[in-house]
Amino acid sequence: MRIVLDAMGSDDRPSPDIEGAIIAARDFPGDSIILVGDHNIIDQALSKHNTTGLKLEIVHASQIIEMSDKPAAVIKDKPNSSIHVGLDLVKSGAADAFVTAGNTGATLAIATLASLGRISGVKRPALGSILKVPQSIDKKIILLDIGATVDAKPEWMTQFALMGSIYAREVIGINNPKVGLLSNGEEDSKGNQVILDTHKLLLEMKTVNFVGNIEPKEALQGGADVIVSDGFVGNIAIKSLEAMGSTIASLIRAEAKRDMAALVGALLMRPAFKRLYRQIDPSEIGGAPLLGLKGVVIIGHGRSNAHAIRNAIRQARLAVESKLVQAIEDGIQAIS
Amino acid sequence: MRIVLDAMGSDDRPSPDIEGAIIAARDFPGDSIILVGDHNIIDQALSKHNTTGLKLEIVHASQIIEMSDKPAAVIKDKPNSSIHVGLDLVKSGAADAFVTAGNTGATLAIATLASLGRISGVKRPALGSILKVPQSIDKKIILLDIGATVDAKPEWMTQFALMGSIYAREVIGINNPKVGLLSNGEEDSKGNQVILDTHKLLLEMKTVNFVGNIEPKEALQGGADVIVSDGFVGNIAIKSLEAMGSTIASLIRAEAKRDMAALVGALLMRPAFKRLYRQIDPSEIGGAPLLGLKGVVIIGHGRSNAHAIRNAIRQARLAVESKLVQAIEDGIQAIS
Repeated sequence: MRIVLDAMGSDDRPSPDIEGAIIAARDFPGDSIILVGDHNIIDQALSKHNTTGLKLEIVHASQIIEMSDKPAAVIKDKPNSSIHVGLDLVKSGAADAFVTAGNTGATLAIATLASLGRISGVKRPALGSILKVPQSIDKKIILLDIGATVDAKPEWMTQFALMGSIYAREVIGINNPKVGLLSNGEEDSKGNQVILDTHKLLLEMKTVNFVGNIEPKEALQGGADVIVSDGFVGNIAIKSLEAMGSTIASLIRAEAKRDMAALVGALLMRPAFKRLYRQIDPSEIGGAPLLGLKGVVIIGHGRSNAHAIRNAIRQARLAVESKLVQAIEDGIQAIS
Repeated sequence: MRIVLDAMGSDDRPSPDIEGAIIAARDFPGDSIILVGDHNIIDQALSKHNTTGLKLEIVHASQIIEMSDKPAAVIKDKPNSSIHVGLDLVKSGAADAFVTAGNTGATLAIATLASLGRISGVKRPALGSILKVPQSIDKKIILLDIGATVDAKPEWMTQFALMGSIYAREVIGINNPKVGLLSNGEEDSKGNQVILDTHKLLLEMKTVNFVGNIEPKEALQGGADVIVSDGFVGNIAIKSLEAMGSTIASLIRAEAKRDMAALVGALLMRPAFKRLYRQIDPSEIGGAPLLGLKGVVIIGHGRSNAHAIRNAIRQARLAVESKLVQAIEDGIQAIS
């Protein structure tokens, strides 16, 4: 397998990206990792590590897309960006998957409009967040869309449900995955107009196992395997979860410093806190699949560390291995 | 001051409601608490407590609205519900505010369509969640709407911004409160169509201090005093915050049980955890103001305990004392 990594992706590029690639090359010795970006910068970063025997390649790309770059402009303004060059390697068949911790909107725009293109019949792509269900060993769910399509129509949302189901089945390995529609109440009558209309369409849809509306708490407890939302609401939901997580983490640190007993307690609890954190740490998953494109694309968080990059590459491997793109093509064709 | 409490409101009614009323009557001895609901049930619950000298009154209401009752049906089907009777006491001037931990949709429907009515010029009411900003002593923000109006138009959202600003100024006591628009990114270009359109209107609005889009994390850190969203998105945001909070709480309990050192650590950290919890515990606020009505209405969580009910009554007192309804009337008139 050949996986392309945008070496210019993360906020702290290129260190986390390069180090993540090296860890992945060690962990998955059968695969080649193709580092795309400025040749000199990549060479310099690689020279700090012992890479003997690792299957690492470099493909030069002269331009870098910043987080502040407008998605609408990058296709024309930066045709030689690491994202564009990397995606084209997948398009041409020179590689099997593309991974980046860079600008999501730019990746989406280039992938959809200038490189891979959408799978025939797919109305809009969806970005799926893979979440571990705390306290449930190895249980994972997919929440989609979390930001690719902010004004989703009900028909598009039914495709998200289908693509999410196919991901859950093929990549996570869940038989007949349950699909929940993220809403402000479990009752059928709850939701805004888009949710109410989507709910009706999902009830009629025979290709997904729709279990009704689901609230954030039940979603986090694994009440469904696939959680469907539009990109705006899904993004706010995921960011609210993260916001409370990081708030509590800082509160624990601050309160532990306020008395000696608490400080000792915190030291004793350190392994417990570590186990806890591993259950909600996004870097354990590493990357979100961008579904609906003619190729595997995984997008990591801008703040990714090397561990997260390694795991994003792992997500790409899983998607390629399970022939996810073909499965989505077949699934969409069956309802078109 | 005379405050009406729906004695049939909470999920565990009438105990939390009655006990909360008793605590409030003790804490605010100048005020009368009017308990509305089934006379026999209230009498029986009160008889378990020593209420000598407390200003508690009972007004009978023969019907109880369940959480499962449809808001559209309760006006006709249950004209003698504790919510309807209670709201009418405020409408007639016999009381100053209404507090319930009951069905939000039903309260909204009765208040808007059959009892108090909307303030002239208010397009739609908004439910505001008052949140404490962790680690900032006494700093509070208001997030609205969190569920009264799930399909909000941009013009309505600008009224939410204004009503939230007036609440922040008059009740929380913030001079020239900063207004943020909840979105999936800070940039002006981020958001769905409703957010983009609302953003433009807020930029032109001279009566609010608009500081731009805000993400959940910055909102929770107090980056603005008033956070504006439509009722669907606000509801998902608040429920996602709560979901992560309760998830981490159960994870801490579970992990602490997995080894002896962690258990001892957890015991030593108990006071720290308590301090922490007080900073994010919704029962410390107790109730959410329903803004835009011709009267003070505070809605508590169905799972309210006595402490939360007492604090919801306190929220009602603060709103009455600060003449919130008059201030909103004046504010809306100024932009109409």
